Amino acid sequence: MARIEPRLLKGFRDYLPEVMIPRVKMLRKIGEVFERFGFEPLDTPAIEYADILMGKLGPEAEKLFYRFKDNGDRDVALRYELTVSLARVVAQYGTDLPRPFKRYQMGPVWRAEAPSVERGRYREFWQCDVDIVGTQSLLADAECLAIDNAVMQAVGVKNFVIRFNNRKLFRGLQQKAGIASDSLMADVMRSVDKLDKIERDGVEKELTGLADLNEAQRATVLEFLDLAKFQSPNSERIARLAQFLAGTTDGEKGCAELSEVLQNAQRMGVPDQHVSADATIVRGLDYYTGTVFETTLTDAPHFGSVMSGGRYDGLVGLFSGKDEPAVGISVGIDRLVTALGELKLLKSGKASAQVLVTVFDESSTQYSLRIASELRSAGISAELYLDTPAKLGKQLKYAERKEIPFVVVAGPDEAASGEATLKNMLAKNQSRMKLEALAAAIAKP
Amino acid sequence: MARIEPRLLKGFRDYLPEVMIPRVKMLRKIGEVFERFGFEPLDTPAIEYADILMGKLGPEAEKLFYRFKDNGDRDVALRYELTVSLARVVAQYGTDLPRPFKRYQMGPVWRAEAPSVERGRYREFWQCDVDIVGTQSLLADAECLAIDNAVMQAVGVKNFVIRFNNRKLFRGLQQKAGIASDSLMADVMRSVDKLDKIERDGVEKELTGLADLNEAQRATVLEFLDLAKFQSPNSERIARLAQFLAGTTDGEKGCAELSEVLQNAQRMGVPDQHVSADATIVRGLDYYTGTVFETTLTDAPHFGSVMSGGRYDGLVGLFSGKDEPAVGISVGIDRLVTALGELKLLKSGKASAQVLVTVFDESSTQYSLRIASELRSAGISAELYLDTPAKLGKQLKYAERKEIPFVVVAGPDEAASGEATLKNMLAKNQSRMKLEALAAAIAKP
Repeated sequence: MARIEPRLLKGFRDYLPEVMIPRVKMLRKIGEVFERFGFEPLDTPAIEYADILMGKLGPEAEKLFYRFKDNGDRDVALRYELTVSLARVVAQYGTDLPRPFKRYQMGPVWRAEAPSVERGRYREFWQCDVDIVGTQSLLADAECLAIDNAVMQAVGVKNFVIRFNNRKLFRGLQQKAGIASDSLMADVMRSVDKLDKIERDGVEKELTGLADLNEAQRATVLEFLDLAKFQSPNSERIARLAQFLAGTTDGEKGCAELSEVLQNAQRMGVPDQHVSADATIVRGLDYYTGTVFETTLTDAPHFGSVMSGGRYDGLVGLFSGKDEPAVGISVGIDRLVTALGELKLLKSGKASAQVLVTVFDESSTQYSLRIASELRSAGISAELYLDTPAKLGKQLKYAERKEIPFVVVAGPDEAASGEATLKNMLAKNQSRMKLEALAAAIAKP
Repeated sequence: MARIEPRLLKGFRDYLPEVMIPRVKMLRKIGEVFERFGFEPLDTPAIEYADILMGKLGPEAEKLFYRFKDNGDRDVALRYELTVSLARVVAQYGTDLPRPFKRYQMGPVWRAEAPSVERGRYREFWQCDVDIVGTQSLLADAECLAIDNAVMQAVGVKNFVIRFNNRKLFRGLQQKAGIASDSLMADVMRSVDKLDKIERDGVEKELTGLADLNEAQRATVLEFLDLAKFQSPNSERIARLAQFLAGTTDGEKGCAELSEVLQNAQRMGVPDQHVSADATIVRGLDYYTGTVFETTLTDAPHFGSVMSGGRYDGLVGLFSGKDEPAVGISVGIDRLVTALGELKLLKSGKASAQVLVTVFDESSTQYSLRIASELRSAGISAELYLDTPAKLGKQLKYAERKEIPFVVVAGPDEAASGEATLKNMLAKNQSRMKLEALAAAIAKP
């Protein structure tokens, strides 16, 4: 049989151990935060009927689906995101599930997009979603900000800002400026959304380019922008926006909601310096109906938002036909891992093991096996050198290459005295000690 | 737009929270065991070129692939198992990966088999694999038994037996009985493999039905069977088998290996009562070359093997053309979850949360938010009741339905005195206490 060339599909990647180790740790920490807030895990199939998965994502997204006929000639596809499957679950199991239904889901999704290694865009990537379905209470929105804050703390980020907004403010602005056309307002919002990239001048230029937007309307939008970016405590900024939008039903409601969400998030323990009410935040145009938010790493803003979400009251009812208000968060896990790596906030190391236990001749092997076993019982990750027979040099090289921080050397001599030599591979020193002292010396070097 | 009927594809399932909660816990525990033995996580794409994934699985397996053309007209498929991708990784990254290469991988695979809910057979299911690539040392085989034992302990199983064998014994038996044809020997092994189901009489009957197997050969096979099942300490049974197979190169080598693996496993801390050298264990015919093993729950043997594996020295070199000896284990995670559920070894509960914190009127909400936040800081999973406003009865019903064991009730009265009422939902009692006492009362009821 001819040798098959080992290769990957374009736009796909392997997660080798040095990438997987911090990734697995981060996924675990994020899952623990979700559970600490009382969210339950859910898993749905990767393959579903195409009509289900496409939901109302629209023709642009439909082109990017992995869609095919299965062996039973069914029209199936790989999931493109996780929310539509949540909507299906909520409809399918109905009152068998409690309301509010709070679930988290972590898993791969597939999109046949133009891949870009530089921009970290692959055709298979993970989504980590947490959603609350079935309540309009703004406590749920505030809880999302609290979870966002807790996740950042759990993964060790100190400098970050959660910028949040309420989409009703844009409806208020539309009313105040008297912009009758929804599609013109969508163009305005698309420009506002670019504020970070093209700055105020760029937005003004784009707005001037909108033929149907008159001068007075443009001035109103720019005044809104300036208020939204006004440097002040959150509550003051919200108060000024409320004053500006006074008289517009949606604007008033949006500002009241913004204020309530902020206050509850604070009561839930979100520190002031990590939240910023920012009326320029737009997020997905067709999706969100109220609260929206995104999270920027202050020391690495070029990564964009690493965690974002909002309230989307129209989507989850898709299959049930019932009103199912919902609010949720999606964590950009791969972006977060890459950013934290760049910020040196990930512990390095290509190994799970804290220590490598060497193995020599037949007479001392028994002793080595006992050491490894005892270290594991003491909660230490201990790897036994398995490719015997091998000289010490080869075993040390293996530890070095895998960045295992400690090596226990135990030959016949050590075995006879009930001792072992512990080599610290980073400090490049070693000391001989009784077996009973090993675990403590490794746990707290 | 017409409402889309929510439905799943045949052979697929959702993992709802009550199934996912114990499943996630078990996956975490298993991953921790793998890491404690120094294995690193690896992840590979779900979609690969069809020729890669099909490797040398053969035409029977190929029929069961989800195979299709992607948008770029490439011949792709969903992975059918994880080992072939490991073989690809080992070949593709060559010496960029250390040897031995020790990795674990957990993830879904897809097979278009006839599904069976009763037999727990679905078209999408998870595999949890751990493998050691690049060494022929039998320490690696023994480590697999040690991991098997550690996994069972970690998930709380007390009564189990790891039955292990070495495939070389069958080659020894073939030599001793003078069975020239490999396909006849394969038929013999297929019968032996059914011993648990059809018992000795059934095997004898099947052997008698093999036209090409003469009476003397049949007698030799049956003698082997009786020795293999002889009730005695492992070492004595192995010694008798060695005596029986003496003079056959493979038989002698196999028994020596069996003995060495047993001894090393014992030195690694595997208790005698959990291992049984069982020369009737066959496992997959085309795959394994040396050690093979499987794990039975003594109190639920009808589930078959929940964890199995062995040495397969011919497979991993598939893409590299190099010799890459390998030994590994696969955990049947879904079978294990189901079996442990039946044995009442899983903690029940449909909730992540240990406690529900009620929320009432505006004045006491602040107090409730503070309680939830403080409990979380103390490491307690605390769910806040979000669908406000709601009466106490409704909130209690929610906790009951989700099987949340505690409820904290804190109205304006409690808020004023810095206290809260803790309801134990199982014991059906309650007591009022200072806020500071809550976390301890929940953690240790």
